[in-house]
Amino acid sequence: MKIDGKHYRSIWLAEDGWSVHIFDQRQFPWETKIVTLVSPDDAAQAISEMWTRGAPMIAMVGAYGFCLGLCQNASDDALAPLYQKLLNTRPTAVNLRWALDKMVALVEPLAPEARAEAAYKFAAALCEEDVELNKAIGHNGLKIIKEISEKKNGETVNILIHCNPGWLATVDYGTATAPIYMAHDAGIKVNVWVDETRPRNQGALLTAYEMQQHGVAHKLITDNAGGHYMQTGQVDMCIVGTDRVTANGDVCNKIGTYLKALAAYDNDVPFYVALPYPTIDYTLNSGADIPIEERDDREVTHMWGLDEDNKVREVKITLSSGANPGFDVTPARLVTAYITDQGVWSDIVPQEQLQVKSA
Amino acid sequence: MKIDGKHYRSIWLAEDGWSVHIFDQRQFPWETKIVTLVSPDDAAQAISEMWTRGAPMIAMVGAYGFCLGLCQNASDDALAPLYQKLLNTRPTAVNLRWALDKMVALVEPLAPEARAEAAYKFAAALCEEDVELNKAIGHNGLKIIKEISEKKNGETVNILIHCNPGWLATVDYGTATAPIYMAHDAGIKVNVWVDETRPRNQGALLTAYEMQQHGVAHKLITDNAGGHYMQTGQVDMCIVGTDRVTANGDVCNKIGTYLKALAAYDNDVPFYVALPYPTIDYTLNSGADIPIEERDDREVTHMWGLDEDNKVREVKITLSSGANPGFDVTPARLVTAYITDQGVWSDIVPQEQLQVKSA
Repeated sequence: MKIDGKHYRSIWLAEDGWSVHIFDQRQFPWETKIVTLVSPDDAAQAISEMWTRGAPMIAMVGAYGFCLGLCQNASDDALAPLYQKLLNTRPTAVNLRWALDKMVALVEPLAPEARAEAAYKFAAALCEEDVELNKAIGHNGLKIIKEISEKKNGETVNILIHCNPGWLATVDYGTATAPIYMAHDAGIKVNVWVDETRPRNQGALLTAYEMQQHGVAHKLITDNAGGHYMQTGQVDMCIVGTDRVTANGDVCNKIGTYLKALAAYDNDVPFYVALPYPTIDYTLNSGADIPIEERDDREVTHMWGLDEDNKVREVKITLSSGANPGFDVTPARLVTAYITDQGVWSDIVPQEQLQVKSA
Repeated sequence: MKIDGKHYRSIWLAEDGWSVHIFDQRQFPWETKIVTLVSPDDAAQAISEMWTRGAPMIAMVGAYGFCLGLCQNASDDALAPLYQKLLNTRPTAVNLRWALDKMVALVEPLAPEARAEAAYKFAAALCEEDVELNKAIGHNGLKIIKEISEKKNGETVNILIHCNPGWLATVDYGTATAPIYMAHDAGIKVNVWVDETRPRNQGALLTAYEMQQHGVAHKLITDNAGGHYMQTGQVDMCIVGTDRVTANGDVCNKIGTYLKALAAYDNDVPFYVALPYPTIDYTLNSGADIPIEERDDREVTHMWGLDEDNKVREVKITLSSGANPGFDVTPARLVTAYITDQGVWSDIVPQEQLQVKSA
């Protein structure tokens, strides 16, 4: 999607053909800072320090991190530590494991000297596939927005979104944002309520920024406000992304998602979860099996922003210590439907019905 | 309650016997700044610029502001403008109007030279009554906490609290905090999950500070986190304050309260609303009749904190504009019970059953 009118993806190969560009997303929206990854350590740092985030993007950075590792050492002995280094950066991220598993399966049978090239080819294919999956999600979700718009006789469709399931979290389009971008581009009037998404403010810093850059009408709201807007008929649909969906349809996503799903359910507002099929974890039966990452409480006790001199700085907002669970689980019973690349599902389909197109 | 080991109320007379001390609460928790009000203009400024806040506290500052006005001019002609000046500071504040109406009714029949003394006596009685009401709430709520503690064989009772229904919002003890302080003082092990309470961060800035100063174990959490803690059995009860409860038991309180009530209901966590009887508005049948204040969006788009040089400063956290509803309405069906000064009620009692003890 666009920044300052120019089209970008959120990950791409440098001109040298092997090092990898991403944005340092911690600088958004204040600065558009492109960084270059030249080693698996760079990739691991980029993931664990959240220069980049979002389940699909983490997988892509992990995949390219694997490629960068093979450039350094493609021997048999190097594979397992490389895999582990990258996986350890975000143990909750199922897409990351998925991409790394695929990588290992691909390169293991090959001669060491053939591994890097095959890995790069595969990483590129993964990126293309991500874009295609998101486009398909967009088309499927667009139909839902269009229907609401028609029911409202073309009046503005109000959509609440949590966190940043946006193009910056994927290679392009985003998951939950894809239908919104497509609706906007199709001339459907939309207004997006963007949840701030404390503690890291991905809504305020990233989703609002994406919307602004693409010209989509939106308002930033606190995470507390969505329930009130649903109670007062000011939300037509909610749409969120997800880090992992279990076989029974439980949805692990950014902390606070569950509260919005409860409010949607209580007010008959449809609650949609947008996801590409690799986000489904068929190895887990229910959300209770998902370990929830407890993150550094500094994310709660401090906050980043722009001061009066336009300098980005961190301020402390309390004298107390905090607690910081990163995700919560929204039970399947609260989900109206799953907007996937393979259609809009009321339930997660059995694994054998999946159309696996993976690169 | 205590600050740096010393007991304070949040409003008290100076040694001269007529000027009035309050805290400039905008400086909490970074600085304990006591200010002296010597005129009705000082009192009006303190309310309108939010040096002080919380429905009971605003009424007390208004009442003492009236006293300060009478010290300057207690003539018949002075009463109406004095009343209006103080009321205009927060025209929607029900308790403020209530206190000022009482003041006028009290002093009007008196000779001008007798008015100030009577007014001071009355203001002091209002403050004492506020403390007594909160103590009674505390005793009633303490029984609930004690029961949970006994059921858990003395293990820590985990209590989630939203916003600042604390002693800083009242003359002392607070409403929702009163049971917590009493439980702590009685040696019951408690841990308080303090909701940050965006956008004004009353949880992070005031409630967490109160807990810290009084030595109550607590953790600051984002407004997004409470649902997860309830899902995972880490909350034994929720307790909130309220700005207004309607006759049917609907609860108007700080934005986001509704979301916590939904999560509590969904997880069988008891959800309590603490209130003194004057907070019940019997003139309104339900929460749908309460106008919700839309506040300045700068509260959403900007944030205050302490920078690395220990300077309090404002930072901007988004490039977008925001929307900022100040309150929401929690339907009575989600409330387990109302902890009032007159007992623990499963429903709001009819007005004729109220024991009105007002000064």
